[in-house]
Amino acid sequence: MLTPILDGNDRRPLYEQLYRHIRGEIEAGRLAPGTRLPSKRALAAHLKVSVVTVEGAYEQLLAEGYLSAQARRGFFVQAGAQEPPPEPGPAPAAAEAPARPAFRWDFSTSGVDTALFPFSTWAKLMREVLSGQEDRLLSAPHPQGVPQLRQAIAGHLYRFRGIRAHPEQIVVGAGSETLIALLVQLLGRQGAYGVEDPGYGKTHRILTSCGVRVEPIPLDRQGLRVEVLDQRQVRVVHVTPSHHFPLGIIMPAPRRQALLRWAGEAPERYIIEDDYDSEFRFSGKPIPALQSLDSGGRVIYLNTFAKTLAPSLRVSYMVLPPALAERWQREFWFYSSTVPSFEQYALARFMEGGHFERHLNRTRTRYKARREALLAAARSSGLLEAGTFSGGDAGLHLLLWMDCRWTEEELVARAARAGVGLSPLSAYDLSPPSPDRPPALVLGYTRIAAQEMAPALAQLKLAWHF
Amino acid sequence: MLTPILDGNDRRPLYEQLYRHIRGEIEAGRLAPGTRLPSKRALAAHLKVSVVTVEGAYEQLLAEGYLSAQARRGFFVQAGAQEPPPEPGPAPAAAEAPARPAFRWDFSTSGVDTALFPFSTWAKLMREVLSGQEDRLLSAPHPQGVPQLRQAIAGHLYRFRGIRAHPEQIVVGAGSETLIALLVQLLGRQGAYGVEDPGYGKTHRILTSCGVRVEPIPLDRQGLRVEVLDQRQVRVVHVTPSHHFPLGIIMPAPRRQALLRWAGEAPERYIIEDDYDSEFRFSGKPIPALQSLDSGGRVIYLNTFAKTLAPSLRVSYMVLPPALAERWQREFWFYSSTVPSFEQYALARFMEGGHFERHLNRTRTRYKARREALLAAARSSGLLEAGTFSGGDAGLHLLLWMDCRWTEEELVARAARAGVGLSPLSAYDLSPPSPDRPPALVLGYTRIAAQEMAPALAQLKLAWHF
Repeated sequence: MLTPILDGNDRRPLYEQLYRHIRGEIEAGRLAPGTRLPSKRALAAHLKVSVVTVEGAYEQLLAEGYLSAQARRGFFVQAGAQEPPPEPGPAPAAAEAPARPAFRWDFSTSGVDTALFPFSTWAKLMREVLSGQEDRLLSAPHPQGVPQLRQAIAGHLYRFRGIRAHPEQIVVGAGSETLIALLVQLLGRQGAYGVEDPGYGKTHRILTSCGVRVEPIPLDRQGLRVEVLDQRQVRVVHVTPSHHFPLGIIMPAPRRQALLRWAGEAPERYIIEDDYDSEFRFSGKPIPALQSLDSGGRVIYLNTFAKTLAPSLRVSYMVLPPALAERWQREFWFYSSTVPSFEQYALARFMEGGHFERHLNRTRTRYKARREALLAAARSSGLLEAGTFSGGDAGLHLLLWMDCRWTEEELVARAARAGVGLSPLSAYDLSPPSPDRPPALVLGYTRIAAQEMAPALAQLKLAWHF
Repeated sequence: MLTPILDGNDRRPLYEQLYRHIRGEIEAGRLAPGTRLPSKRALAAHLKVSVVTVEGAYEQLLAEGYLSAQARRGFFVQAGAQEPPPEPGPAPAAAEAPARPAFRWDFSTSGVDTALFPFSTWAKLMREVLSGQEDRLLSAPHPQGVPQLRQAIAGHLYRFRGIRAHPEQIVVGAGSETLIALLVQLLGRQGAYGVEDPGYGKTHRILTSCGVRVEPIPLDRQGLRVEVLDQRQVRVVHVTPSHHFPLGIIMPAPRRQALLRWAGEAPERYIIEDDYDSEFRFSGKPIPALQSLDSGGRVIYLNTFAKTLAPSLRVSYMVLPPALAERWQREFWFYSSTVPSFEQYALARFMEGGHFERHLNRTRTRYKARREALLAAARSSGLLEAGTFSGGDAGLHLLLWMDCRWTEEELVARAARAGVGLSPLSAYDLSPPSPDRPPALVLGYTRIAAQEMAPALAQLKLAWHF
């Protein structure tokens, strides 16, 4: 390591102690070939020794071939100076992302088609933000998010989701996971948190990891079974009423009212409305958000730009009911905003300039075409004689219910061998499903071009013999 | 709201229903003057009605003066169409950041002098990242942070802090607060978490808010009193050994060893080493990080770029011991990275190109000059006859111990009236201090130019009569 303890009482001069230390590090392989060493001035300043000391050490290492010097670039560790075999080092087990096998046709529900993202517009806005806003960009953003962005989000919610949210009620955060973890701190850990079963397993894991008791709540055809909430002492419930993940159920108005009534029946009961893909409706009139029906201040509205822009942006937001917003401002003021000001200003401009709504319209059209191509290919391939689709009125995935004796696992495995990636519905079960549920598969269609739907279904036909 | 329920069975045509709805919203003041309405096509697509319907409604509103049309820009709500008085709306109590009074000389410890940030280099690198890396920028980054950035951090830690960290041990996150909240999930909630008293109050609040029991641990002249940890059943302790906040103590080697021994005496004991301003040492040889002395895998090293670059960047990182890194990868894989890929690639380039280390050298020189100007001004003003500085060998703040009968509150209030912003030491006490502790003030000096130190001290002299 380059922070040796140099000892002034040692009979060897400092430069020699330093030289021996660096040589040892190179020989042990801890300083890898090609590594750039700090500049003489920087290392001298760091070690509080004179530049001459570092110079002495570097010159010796150069002379002995441990280092090479490159004009105006600095000093680099030479290859071949290491003792074989190099020390293994403290690397933990390999930590590559658990690789999803690469499918020729990937009906995964995670991710979106980033090719649709208007990158050049985005880059242009980012460049504009970079020019001449230095002060604003370098100071810490408002803890709830920069006002300009919250204003733009409030405008969008009002125009497109019928949601009246004052910018002071909005909290911007680095992804829905971060916001859910903060919500647990805001809402407390008493009672249980209910989650939809089947549902988005990550929510269950995050809530558990945040130290709350989590209760999976079963669904019927109208969505979450509200009467179960009381039985399980649920106090806070996470729901996806606009388009259930993964069943695709759009919760009808009477059930929404029942859920709101449940929340109103005891103090400190809350509903987290996760509106993760509500921007994508393809048929039917828009259904107002649960939040817009809530007169009692019990609904927390949560949404993300990961599905509508790009997963790399890490911007989500929530709308707190006024009383919770006040509690937030009183008790959570100490939390800094988790999103860099840079992204926040760029996104605010993107929304203010109408680019976001134009982008939504464009992707909606594109995804709709993909969905229709998928349905057409399903019809012409004969798949619809062996199965039924559901949940396709909104959102970015469909459910395919199969009328066959194969299990979901067999269907998925056969599809995989034919190059088609699908998820079994059981992947989203939190508790064992009813034994008479037919096998079902979840098909996200955002990543497959329209003209690829027919070949994909042709492969499925071969794999599944329908 | 612009998501009306349009009723096909109503005897009024759809366009009229829509027109009445928008008019009502404008009259009620819910659509503010100047608001841009969605384009006809966008609103028609949203409401699933024909463009002709929206056109009909907009034309009526234009005719009646509720809207104005601007060529190629769209439709805007006209001023003067609102019924007075407008509805108050659901805004919670004003939520501006609790404003720090603006001082002529601000010795605050929060924030750094962002004018020193090499903004043009940073902007140039950001522009480079924006050009031609589209795919990489739009897909979700590795959950622990992009490998290139973790590699650069590992290199920096090795060269400047003597820390051997494999990039697989590093987790990048949106600020130290976010990482501390994740650490609670990783380390669990059994036993107590110890924090330094006095110390950084935010850590106490975050840990409490994350659902753990927090025990303030007193300090002596060598830092944290290790023997108290057992008495209070502490299992995880948060420390700032390189430069205690706010006392400025640099924990000497024997105390470091005692702390490491404590951690090794029982399973699942951990030390969170918060190295928040270790880059700024001004005298004395560098002291190896606690992490580099730890052979038992009990130290989690935490640091941030908020102090070294800019608070708006929201990038911190931690180095997990190998076994914890494996646990992370096994159990926390589902957490997405909280930092946008964009910032991560830009920062990686900034570090790889040597800009970070150059920037550190430059700011260190600059801050050192400010610190020396402050000490010189203190001497020449006579302040050092009435008080003593401590804690100034490292870090970005000093402690001023006063030998006078005024309380800290009186000293701070008098300074404030003279335009000098200071914090009392008591602001960092978690439990009542010993009654014989002299009054002390915390002086951060990063935001005051060297030539301003003398005038600042002259004002203090008037205010404090020393």
